[in-house]
Amino acid sequence: MKKHLSYAPTPPMGWNSWDCFGASVREEEVKAHADVMADKLSAYGWEYVVVDIQWSEPEASSTRYNDFYPLNMDEYSRLIPAENRFPSAKDGNGFKPLGDYIHAKGLKFGIHMMRGIPRQAVHQNTALKGTDKRARDIALNNICPWNSDMYGVNVDMPEGQLYYDSLIELYASWGVDFIKVDDIADSKIYHDAHKKEIAAIQKAIQKVGRPMVLSLSPGPAALKNGTFFQDHANMWRLTDDFWDHWDALYHMFDRTAEWAPYVRPGNWPDCDMLPLGHIGIRAVDGGGGDNWTRFTQNEQYLLMSLWTIFGSPLMFGGTLPDIDDFTLKLLTNTSVLQMYHQIVERRQIHREAEWIVWEAQSETDTYYAFFNVSDYKMPIPEELKALVEGNSIEDLWHGTTNLKDEAWMVPSHGVLLGQVND
Amino acid sequence: MKKHLSYAPTPPMGWNSWDCFGASVREEEVKAHADVMADKLSAYGWEYVVVDIQWSEPEASSTRYNDFYPLNMDEYSRLIPAENRFPSAKDGNGFKPLGDYIHAKGLKFGIHMMRGIPRQAVHQNTALKGTDKRARDIALNNICPWNSDMYGVNVDMPEGQLYYDSLIELYASWGVDFIKVDDIADSKIYHDAHKKEIAAIQKAIQKVGRPMVLSLSPGPAALKNGTFFQDHANMWRLTDDFWDHWDALYHMFDRTAEWAPYVRPGNWPDCDMLPLGHIGIRAVDGGGGDNWTRFTQNEQYLLMSLWTIFGSPLMFGGTLPDIDDFTLKLLTNTSVLQMYHQIVERRQIHREAEWIVWEAQSETDTYYAFFNVSDYKMPIPEELKALVEGNSIEDLWHGTTNLKDEAWMVPSHGVLLGQVND
Amino acid sequence: MKKHLSYAPTPPMGWNSWDCFGASVREEEVKAHADVMADKLSAYGWEYVVVDIQWSEPEASSTRYNDFYPLNMDEYSRLIPAENRFPSAKDGNGFKPLGDYIHAKGLKFGIHMMRGIPRQAVHQNTALKGTDKRARDIALNNICPWNSDMYGVNVDMPEGQLYYDSLIELYASWGVDFIKVDDIADSKIYHDAHKKEIAAIQKAIQKVGRPMVLSLSPGPAALKNGTFFQDHANMWRLTDDFWDHWDALYHMFDRTAEWAPYVRPGNWPDCDMLPLGHIGIRAVDGGGGDNWTRFTQNEQYLLMSLWTIFGSPLMFGGTLPDIDDFTLKLLTNTSVLQMYHQIVERRQIHREAEWIVWEAQSETDTYYAFFNVSDYKMPIPEELKALVEGNSIEDLWHGTTNLKDEAWMVPSHGVLLGQVND
Amino acid sequence: MKKHLSYAPTPPMGWNSWDCFGASVREEEVKAHADVMADKLSAYGWEYVVVDIQWSEPEASSTRYNDFYPLNMDEYSRLIPAENRFPSAKDGNGFKPLGDYIHAKGLKFGIHMMRGIPRQAVHQNTALKGTDKRARDIALNNICPWNSDMYGVNVDMPEGQLYYDSLIELYASWGVDFIKVDDIADSKIYHDAHKKEIAAIQKAIQKVGRPMVLSLSPGPAALKNGTFFQDHANMWRLTDDFWDHWDALYHMFDRTAEWAPYVRPGNWPDCDMLPLGHIGIRAVDGGGGDNWTRFTQNEQYLLMSLWTIFGSPLMFGGTLPDIDDFTLKLLTNTSVLQMYHQIVERRQIHREAEWIVWEAQSETDTYYAFFNVSDYKMPIPEELKALVEGNSIEDLWHGTTNLKDEAWMVPSHGVLLGQVND
Repeated sequence: MKKHLSYAPTPPMGWNSWDCFGASVREEEVKAHADVMADKLSAYGWEYVVVDIQWSEPEASSTRYNDFYPLNMDEYSRLIPAENRFPSAKDGNGFKPLGDYIHAKGLKFGIHMMRGIPRQAVHQNTALKGTDKRARDIALNNICPWNSDMYGVNVDMPEGQLYYDSLIELYASWGVDFIKVDDIADSKIYHDAHKKEIAAIQKAIQKVGRPMVLSLSPGPAALKNGTFFQDHANMWRLTDDFWDHWDALYHMFDRTAEWAPYVRPGNWPDCDMLPLGHIGIRAVDGGGGDNWTRFTQNEQYLLMSLWTIFGSPLMFGGTLPDIDDFTLKLLTNTSVLQMYHQIVERRQIHREAEWIVWEAQSETDTYYAFFNVSDYKMPIPEELKALVEGNSIEDLWHGTTNLKDEAWMVPSHGVLLGQVND
Repeated sequence: MKKHLSYAPTPPMGWNSWDCFGASVREEEVKAHADVMADKLSAYGWEYVVVDIQWSEPEASSTRYNDFYPLNMDEYSRLIPAENRFPSAKDGNGFKPLGDYIHAKGLKFGIHMMRGIPRQAVHQNTALKGTDKRARDIALNNICPWNSDMYGVNVDMPEGQLYYDSLIELYASWGVDFIKVDDIADSKIYHDAHKKEIAAIQKAIQKVGRPMVLSLSPGPAALKNGTFFQDHANMWRLTDDFWDHWDALYHMFDRTAEWAPYVRPGNWPDCDMLPLGHIGIRAVDGGGGDNWTRFTQNEQYLLMSLWTIFGSPLMFGGTLPDIDDFTLKLLTNTSVLQMYHQIVERRQIHREAEWIVWEAQSETDTYYAFFNVSDYKMPIPEELKALVEGNSIEDLWHGTTNLKDEAWMVPSHGVLLGQVND
Repeated sequence: MKKHLSYAPTPPMGWNSWDCFGASVREEEVKAHADVMADKLSAYGWEYVVVDIQWSEPEASSTRYNDFYPLNMDEYSRLIPAENRFPSAKDGNGFKPLGDYIHAKGLKFGIHMMRGIPRQAVHQNTALKGTDKRARDIALNNICPWNSDMYGVNVDMPEGQLYYDSLIELYASWGVDFIKVDDIADSKIYHDAHKKEIAAIQKAIQKVGRPMVLSLSPGPAALKNGTFFQDHANMWRLTDDFWDHWDALYHMFDRTAEWAPYVRPGNWPDCDMLPLGHIGIRAVDGGGGDNWTRFTQNEQYLLMSLWTIFGSPLMFGGTLPDIDDFTLKLLTNTSVLQMYHQIVERRQIHREAEWIVWEAQSETDTYYAFFNVSDYKMPIPEELKALVEGNSIEDLWHGTTNLKDEAWMVPSHGVLLGQVND
Repeated sequence: MKKHLSYAPTPPMGWNSWDCFGASVREEEVKAHADVMADKLSAYGWEYVVVDIQWSEPEASSTRYNDFYPLNMDEYSRLIPAENRFPSAKDGNGFKPLGDYIHAKGLKFGIHMMRGIPRQAVHQNTALKGTDKRARDIALNNICPWNSDMYGVNVDMPEGQLYYDSLIELYASWGVDFIKVDDIADSKIYHDAHKKEIAAIQKAIQKVGRPMVLSLSPGPAALKNGTFFQDHANMWRLTDDFWDHWDALYHMFDRTAEWAPYVRPGNWPDCDMLPLGHIGIRAVDGGGGDNWTRFTQNEQYLLMSLWTIFGSPLMFGGTLPDIDDFTLKLLTNTSVLQMYHQIVERRQIHREAEWIVWEAQSETDTYYAFFNVSDYKMPIPEELKALVEGNSIEDLWHGTTNLKDEAWMVPSHGVLLGQVND
């Protein structure tokens, strides 16, 4: 049907600044990551470079926000980059120069925005573009509970839609290819998605014409809104922020099993960024600090297998300039990435205390992931091996062929991700 | 993927005894309905004749159950038909003769069963087929809150699976083609589907090999179990019992919008029986009594449009021997039924206070349903007409062609179900 | 125990401006009501004159708030009266002149305040009294969902307590005797009382030493916080805003039955203002408009009987200058008010579909209220009359003696409020 | 008011068989415990000897029930003692001989009953005393989810009340002084108390005239039913079964704080049995097995302080014949028990992460309990010591006098229970 969103025909892959730098990333850091992505990752499909939350806040320094601090704003109540952090944005250039830099590398540029209009605009009652109405007229008395920047916008008024149009126009003029909208897929205090504002933002994107992938945060997105999300966004988060804890990873099995029927070209339910490699440089959420991921190597194989067989976007959260060899290989396994891009249908087919099994199908091949979620290294039980149609599978992470009459051992918190061999 | 259920490639269509006769239908009534179905409806795809709940209770007389009354049971703790109500079942014939009668008409035969094992078997501790274990050993202390016949079965024990196997074998020997299992898709007191017992029943069906459509009641089925239902059943109910009230019909828009992504060959989420025509002969639920449906004609068009564009099974609930012309035409509109059988994708594309719009696609055609859920006759707003790609649509209920520059009027609680004409 | 609050030894009685004037009452209106109260009601115990919400908003005109409009504020981030509405407040007098006027009539003065600190103070980052910290430093990113004036205050910081201290000191300097704090007893979005701020406000009252009754809104207060409310407030609301609908009145039976064990000197769970007489002058909530109460006379007897036998505060919501004779008599029935002031224990002793019965005890007398909540005039059933110990009761509203061998008729939605006669 | 229940003027104290023997206690064990109670505890106020659940089940062996096993029952569908376990019950004596034995020791006799009528009676449709109706006629299709013995009784029918009357008459004829009714104060599946059946049982007790304390299980009882419980029972459980875990003990602070306003003569909200001393002889719930309590000595002082200052009944759960000196002293501290019996008002007055403080008042004395719920031994903070009015308190557990200018140290999970010295 014509209603399918045409952007994002395959799941978006890129890097996002949050897991490393929280709200505080700086222009030179963004460029350094773009450089490495172009050099080492773009050949494998990695392409988006995303500047996360509060790029208009001059004093942002970590994942903790400075409540009620002034933000950099233009004459039409629109937030613009803090020039101390993004020097190229001076003279009203906004993110255009940074976008140009990234595009010149053959990559794509993404930014974050909060649902709504700045509270400072509302209390100062500043102007809007294209109307005599002012900020106070279109603001709603609803907030994000975890960030004090914005009020909701009343899109039942034409001027509310106009405000979102003016934002998306500005972003298009900067060359933005990807927008991550926050406080919108699930509200912790209003207990639903802000659906009217989602529809208004997608409408503004359709109007402006530039292909911009729309990503909605935070989760958990509600399943009952599944078809609404399919019609209005390319990605939406399945859980609250994901960090490097086994509990959070284990919980993702529930959510991916529920959301599998909604995955299709243009729609990629989102398991969140990959907190792998070196993270937490200026991020204090998640409890890890400036350090290497707390996931074991086996947990990392398991994570990547779940994200790829399910079809989640892949947004790397670690640093790129000092990426280690293990992590780099994890992100550039061509067998796994080929599976990832070619799957047309997937689902969880077995679940009990120790084992979870997924099956996926491309036009030509069948794949299985056997996840050992127990605390022990164990062979896959015979009745689960019997689910595989064929005599052997190829282990996509290690390149070995496993015959069905062998014992298929899987480490604790590990995975056997296999392609049916015949 | 191989996991798709192969039975029920198109949505099941038939007649069910509940809306007319509650728990009390008799053999001659079933036959009389089969006769009319063969005569007037089978050419249009109607084929299942389903005997609903408590066919083993000799004194059942309406939709109200006689709590704790004795049921007719065989030596292996399996319920068998009450012979005073089903005379052909005598001499241990069970439903075989009635099944034969229905098959001879070119139709298919369905029966109802409650989840579990009869409580009378448990308290008498009667035998099971194929094991020395007895009824008490496999029973669980859980119940259906609205019917006192059964206890749950512990299918973690091999003997629990064996009991369900013995039931399905018996039904297969009777020639059963369709099984409606009750107290299983949603429990009012345990607040989830009884998933283990669903899996056990489907496993028993696979074992016995006879194509038997599996239908699960009552609703509301939980969306989070969507892929589980897809893997284990052909139909599952979206709401609690549906009767002829506008509120119940209006509520169905919510549930169908949510469940649309799960509809596919083999899987037909179920909006429940059609309480149309003459209903309530010996049924006191729903508040209508022995009378004609309380839905207006417009509401009936709306109902049939929603059920068909969504892809719900169609199980007629009214009497067939005295079916009136309006109702008969409603069930035998070839344009609507062609749409119903050929749709491959459908979804709600618009919803606000007064209008709900669905769009569907077959391999060759596009369909729209514009539902006027307001209390006023109104023209479809221009911005909604603009959703239609093409210059005109054909009104499937009335056969007229509507040009896009005309006013498309829709009555209150009515529908325009249209096929794009060019 | 020493923990009992010493203010409000009997339930507070007075007039509140909300039901008539919403957020918009003016000084001359307050004075006019004080005049009548002194003249006609004070002899019966009525004494508080309470100016409700948004007395600092110059453009307030009804019960609908002007979101994000500027409020009148002093140099220390404290709201002060809008001078266009309260002319005597000019020259920094605040409410002192109005308080003096009311005190001169032998009455007491009450005002409303919202939990928190003005958002305009936070976004302008204005000064606080007695500290170098500023508004932004003590504000929390939490709001009232139905009014856009304030942010919460972080009373874990000494400067947060200091801010509340500075408010209460100001109110004491104005001669305030009664404070109604709003958005504090139940939050519609945070789903609990704001307990820390309640404790901070009571602490500030204890510090300042002036007897000020503390009243908490809105409801429903949660029963699990019952002893917390007893320790920290004199009144707290049992429901959301109460208006003149039978459904709202009927619902109050549930809440009063639950809260009866918490009523005692100093603690008067609050059934909300009395929407009786002429109401809605500039109030559009509740659906009534500028008109006389929609309660029937029988419902008004029932309401007053429930409020008084339960021990709720009595805050009249209607206009006083044009009060009619029926309403005046309702407010000045000496038998009922004597019961009201002398009850030491009360509880609901019977409840079913048609009848609800309360019993209360003073040091010397026993009282019963037989509420007929059915839609029919009916005699009290014999088994309920048998609950009365004694041979007759005196009907407190009508002054007649009812013998137990007579039929005690009670009108639909009416009451027999009786004192045991021997 | 006259509505106060007159039985249980002080909180009941006794021994209950559950924590030691589960469903399986035998007559000789009951007698052995009665002997020791008479000998060592009765002088301190301990008096009830209570036979807990399933005394009619011949094969009961632990806290795990044998689902659907036959129970010993008389001709009127009433359960009677299993004679293999209670030999004196033979020849239709029921519990009369055991009651006589206990009474001869100067003690009181309590038994357990399940809400409802035996399922075996319903499925056999056995007779009832005093009516032609039979078991099936008064049974309801509702169950206890954790025990398979009974169905609910329809007390809207006079014959339903009659059945409960017949039970209580039988128990009175046995000399029963205390009835613990189970599956009635909170249903895990119907999510409320079974209030109609509670009222029916209390009505039956009032009819029979014998003072029988009515104790309702299990919890958590809902606070909204507080006045209902006060009017209809002497004890009701605040939580689900309590065992010897710190988490369960810590949770009791929440519930006791909420319920404190409901404690008064005749009404003793119940913190459940004391799992102290030697427990778990044939009890497998709670995870402890046949062993000594897992509470530390400090936790035991804390537990006894909370139970007594709150006013909970005290039902010892450990063995008496081999009671150790520490436990015996815990149960027979005369200072603590004097406080326990004389308190007229109590409440939690302080609660934060590390410290919880209660205050209580008798006619003559003031008491404080300072509970250290942290993991560290710590001195009571000065601001909490300041709550004590007076210069010193006497430590009731250790008999020492603590001056206010000393450091009052309290061990982790320990308590200072003090009486104000002046």
